[in-house]
Amino acid sequence: MFDFGLPAFFDVLAEPQRSELQKLARPKTYRDGEILHQPSDVADSMGWIESGALLFGKYLQEEGFHTLARLGPGHHFGEFSAFSSPLGETPLRRLAAVAEGRTVVNEIAAEDLRGLFTSDPEYLRAFHFVTTARLALLLELYDDARRLPARQRIINFLSLVERLMKDERLVTCTQADVSKMLGLSKVTVNQTLRALTERGVISVGYGTIKFEDAARLHAMTDRV
Amino acid sequence: MFDFGLPAFFDVLAEPQRSELQKLARPKTYRDGEILHQPSDVADSMGWIESGALLFGKYLQEEGFHTLARLGPGHHFGEFSAFSSPLGETPLRRLAAVAEGRTVVNEIAAEDLRGLFTSDPEYLRAFHFVTTARLALLLELYDDARRLPARQRIINFLSLVERLMKDERLVTCTQADVSKMLGLSKVTVNQTLRALTERGVISVGYGTIKFEDAARLHAMTDRV
Repeated sequence: MFDFGLPAFFDVLAEPQRSELQKLARPKTYRDGEILHQPSDVADSMGWIESGALLFGKYLQEEGFHTLARLGPGHHFGEFSAFSSPLGETPLRRLAAVAEGRTVVNEIAAEDLRGLFTSDPEYLRAFHFVTTARLALLLELYDDARRLPARQRIINFLSLVERLMKDERLVTCTQADVSKMLGLSKVTVNQTLRALTERGVISVGYGTIKFEDAARLHAMTDRV
Repeated sequence: MFDFGLPAFFDVLAEPQRSELQKLARPKTYRDGEILHQPSDVADSMGWIESGALLFGKYLQEEGFHTLARLGPGHHFGEFSAFSSPLGETPLRRLAAVAEGRTVVNEIAAEDLRGLFTSDPEYLRAFHFVTTARLALLLELYDDARRLPARQRIINFLSLVERLMKDERLVTCTQADVSKMLGLSKVTVNQTLRALTERGVISVGYGTIKFEDAARLHAMTDRV
């Protein structure tokens, strides 16, 4: 999952909770390719991305590190490390995290967060809000991946992103990002985006896609 | 998404919050195929399933109602109706909900929950816990659907479920459930389950799958 159009924790969090976290956090800078943690490492901190991006993934027998999600500025991870598990287990990282380009992450030790998270529901409200949005997007993408041809998946995906963006009409993403997100070849993505451009539905800039005719885009999905 | 092995809100919620919700809830019985709500209906209640199951889906041009998720006892929906949106919008249902078989749902009006949810973080902790588990499962299933052949997807899926179940070794699901969950034909699912049974990895009962050799199952996935 990539973060196109998805709300980010730090943008959703209210004041004064935002300032509270900023006071507790220490910014840490990672260089491109640097590993923050590995699967099964003990999770003892949460973080949110200040600049740059993180890739979350796992290791496969064939290809080694394989990206499942890419998150950019404002997006968080590891908040579960500050919640006590019902069974009292030590929380572990599920995925590896690797910096993409020079990346600054604001990090807070889990022990500094426990008290906050159990006394003020605003933090959990913000976590739950963004996690629910991620889940809703992923549920649609998964369903499309199971049953639709590539061209229709690209159209449905763009329509979902357009809705998530609300009043924004420009999304920062390359054709390679769309191709990674949907697991489709760059050639297929390029052909479909070109056809949509010719029909005046979108326009493609340098690293951006602009929605020119959202009503027409939605009419091209297979949704009612 | 189906609920195999996923933790359910009502099981995860601590006491006395569980009893608190039970006091507020009114059980409502739906007959098979009865519609609870449609997409874009105003969301003014949350519910959790007491018995039976609910199908959540959307309407497609070709096939009409199309199931995206099936949730059973203990699982919740519509909790977002009790949170105030940052922009003050009226919360709307995203998906249609339909009863599968005779289904009893405990329902609570959103206005009765707002005060509780903003004063006690335990409710949000439980919502966030189960939503995060759903997201983690779906992220893996989506990734598998993008890149793997059917047989490997079934093996990876069973291995994920086995891990979610922890000490439980028996999961209640039919071959048709697996086929719906993964969007694969029943023939393919049947062939793969039979091959796994012959190797002693699982055994298939009437509406159940039992994990006989979890280590071997995991070794057959494409994970490291």
